[in-house]
Amino acid sequence: MEHAPYPTVRLRPKANARTIRHGFPWIYEDELVVDRRTRAMPGGTIALLEDAERQPMGVVAVNPASKIIARMLDPDPEARIDTAWLAARLTRAADLRGRLFDAPFYRLVHAEADGLPGLVIDRFGEVAVVQPNAAWIDRLLDPLCDALNGLGVARVVKNAAGRTRALEGLDDAGGVLRGHVEGPLPVPMNGATYMADLLGGQKTGLYFDQRDNHATVARLARGARVLDVFSHVGGFSLAALAGGAASALAVDGSAPALELARAGAEASGLAGRFETRQGDAFATLEALADETARFDIVICDPPAFAPSKQARDAGLRAYERIARLATPLVAPGGFLVLCSCSHAVDLAAFRVACGRGIGRAGGTPRLLHTGFAGPDHPQLPHLPESGYLKALVFAP
Amino acid sequence: MEHAPYPTVRLRPKANARTIRHGFPWIYEDELVVDRRTRAMPGGTIALLEDAERQPMGVVAVNPASKIIARMLDPDPEARIDTAWLAARLTRAADLRGRLFDAPFYRLVHAEADGLPGLVIDRFGEVAVVQPNAAWIDRLLDPLCDALNGLGVARVVKNAAGRTRALEGLDDAGGVLRGHVEGPLPVPMNGATYMADLLGGQKTGLYFDQRDNHATVARLARGARVLDVFSHVGGFSLAALAGGAASALAVDGSAPALELARAGAEASGLAGRFETRQGDAFATLEALADETARFDIVICDPPAFAPSKQARDAGLRAYERIARLATPLVAPGGFLVLCSCSHAVDLAAFRVACGRGIGRAGGTPRLLHTGFAGPDHPQLPHLPESGYLKALVFAP
Repeated sequence: MEHAPYPTVRLRPKANARTIRHGFPWIYEDELVVDRRTRAMPGGTIALLEDAERQPMGVVAVNPASKIIARMLDPDPEARIDTAWLAARLTRAADLRGRLFDAPFYRLVHAEADGLPGLVIDRFGEVAVVQPNAAWIDRLLDPLCDALNGLGVARVVKNAAGRTRALEGLDDAGGVLRGHVEGPLPVPMNGATYMADLLGGQKTGLYFDQRDNHATVARLARGARVLDVFSHVGGFSLAALAGGAASALAVDGSAPALELARAGAEASGLAGRFETRQGDAFATLEALADETARFDIVICDPPAFAPSKQARDAGLRAYERIARLATPLVAPGGFLVLCSCSHAVDLAAFRVACGRGIGRAGGTPRLLHTGFAGPDHPQLPHLPESGYLKALVFAP
Repeated sequence: MEHAPYPTVRLRPKANARTIRHGFPWIYEDELVVDRRTRAMPGGTIALLEDAERQPMGVVAVNPASKIIARMLDPDPEARIDTAWLAARLTRAADLRGRLFDAPFYRLVHAEADGLPGLVIDRFGEVAVVQPNAAWIDRLLDPLCDALNGLGVARVVKNAAGRTRALEGLDDAGGVLRGHVEGPLPVPMNGATYMADLLGGQKTGLYFDQRDNHATVARLARGARVLDVFSHVGGFSLAALAGGAASALAVDGSAPALELARAGAEASGLAGRFETRQGDAFATLEALADETARFDIVICDPPAFAPSKQARDAGLRAYERIARLATPLVAPGGFLVLCSCSHAVDLAAFRVACGRGIGRAGGTPRLLHTGFAGPDHPQLPHLPESGYLKALVFAP
């Protein structure tokens, strides 16, 4: 834990102090006076930020190695970043989710927009998976676990797979921090029960961000034959079946993910209408076309094809190809749902890529609905980076 | 009615024939050979489009006075644009809506995305309001009414208030085209009954585009005190009350709109929890702040503050001001819903303007949800102009 008083860092006169005072949470390296003392601060040092006239502006987390050299933690210069402070932030975040959801299964903390820069926490009842993607919170995991305990979260898993951890000088060692966690956990969402293996990582965990888009598909699903490509643990399939789909076929490359999808269908009482097929998504789309298979709803929710700016063009071509291969599988009057979780592909570019793919397959890209991550993933409007997830519903 | 064979127009070699073949529905004036004969065509002339090699590409509507000199009607060069053709387009549009909605109250035709360039039709059971915003369809209103009759729509109102009609050389004379239409009509949506005066124009008609966003607010509304500013005929208020809101106060400048809102509340059995206040929205927001009134949900759905590119900056300032004035009225833990129907303000600019206003009022612009027009307003991805409506839900 840090002890007061915190060391001081100071804005340069050119910095936009007003924007920071109005809530912009980042200070870039060229906005801060970086003297030898500041440069020597360990990543994650808690410090007091002053403006160029030495007026205090709040408490920040400093990382001299990052382009975002400081992140605002609290505009109150008297704030002490301790268990009580963390508990207050968590309580505010939990109160918001409590107004949005019936059960405590949601993204509890979504970093900056919840006033906890770089920290992500997913809540599964009394189990939490924390992603400490910034150095300051990686140093405060013990008080964080104490604060979570105060919310009734007794068991805590650390997921250290986040890409930004390396930029912050952090290792990738995860594991159980508190309590005992073992085996898949049932998660109620959209009328179905999903099975999540919280220790198995991205391949078998659970993403809360698609919940609203799952619900949108479920509302279209009565009586429908559903194809769910890149199904993961069955997010779209099980919601569609719970919404009255006649059948769902889940396709994924990961055998453990499909096993959890089947376990979820079983737990939801939906196994009789659910099938899985393991394989490469592109190859399976082509094989299904050869079989002249047709579905009333086709969903493709691939991993990020454009995880970085460098991969943007190749990613757009891959999205276009998915759209082109999926379109012929949509029955007349059916729907095509195309998703992207690529930070580097914005909504306009994704729309055009999908439209081009549908057009090349002979369809009309009638776009009916655009969805994003659910409300437990709040964003700050001046941080466009946070709007990564897009889900488009077409009537092709 | 046109008679075959249609006159021919031809693409210039520089035109992007491939894009048009893949579904882009517009031909710009510099893409077409505009000889004296083409220039003399009356606006709305149906013609056969050929590519630069004189290969037929489809049937188009030509308007020599417009920058969009031709709009694709049908890629089949043999198509005849008559009652049967219109009926087929209407049937396809109605089939799509039939899969989306329980009752025939929706936007039946949304122009280009429904294969009917420039034509908008709202359906209220067996009454339709048509907006023929392009010359070709203004010349075909009689076969259009016949085709609507085939769908069970016996009564037809023409709304000629669209801005683009003047560009097409059309007058602003509306009225009843078929049958007898009189008095407000009940419209079921989101569990409430709205009253729409279809002859009263924009002030007292009904917009279907906000239906999904009304539903989003209704899901947040249980037990909430709701303030609905720029309420029109009560779109958000009545949906919120039907969703369990404790109370709703609707504010609008139009007395006839508020009268219809009260009639809707009465018809929905919700009048006991509904109040209205007539007045200027900005002044009323300030007055409510002076009264230290607080609401759990505050919605501001103003008319287009930026109807044109020239009005963009002033419009953004007006949106920021709305956000700043509304934020203090949101009770702790409450929601702020800010909407824009300005074509000239894109999503990113609107987000930032709202965020700035909330920040200046001392709030945090936590953006939970972004909604657009509902699925009966399909878009073509390459026509970004069609994405005018934005609704942002903040937890400020």
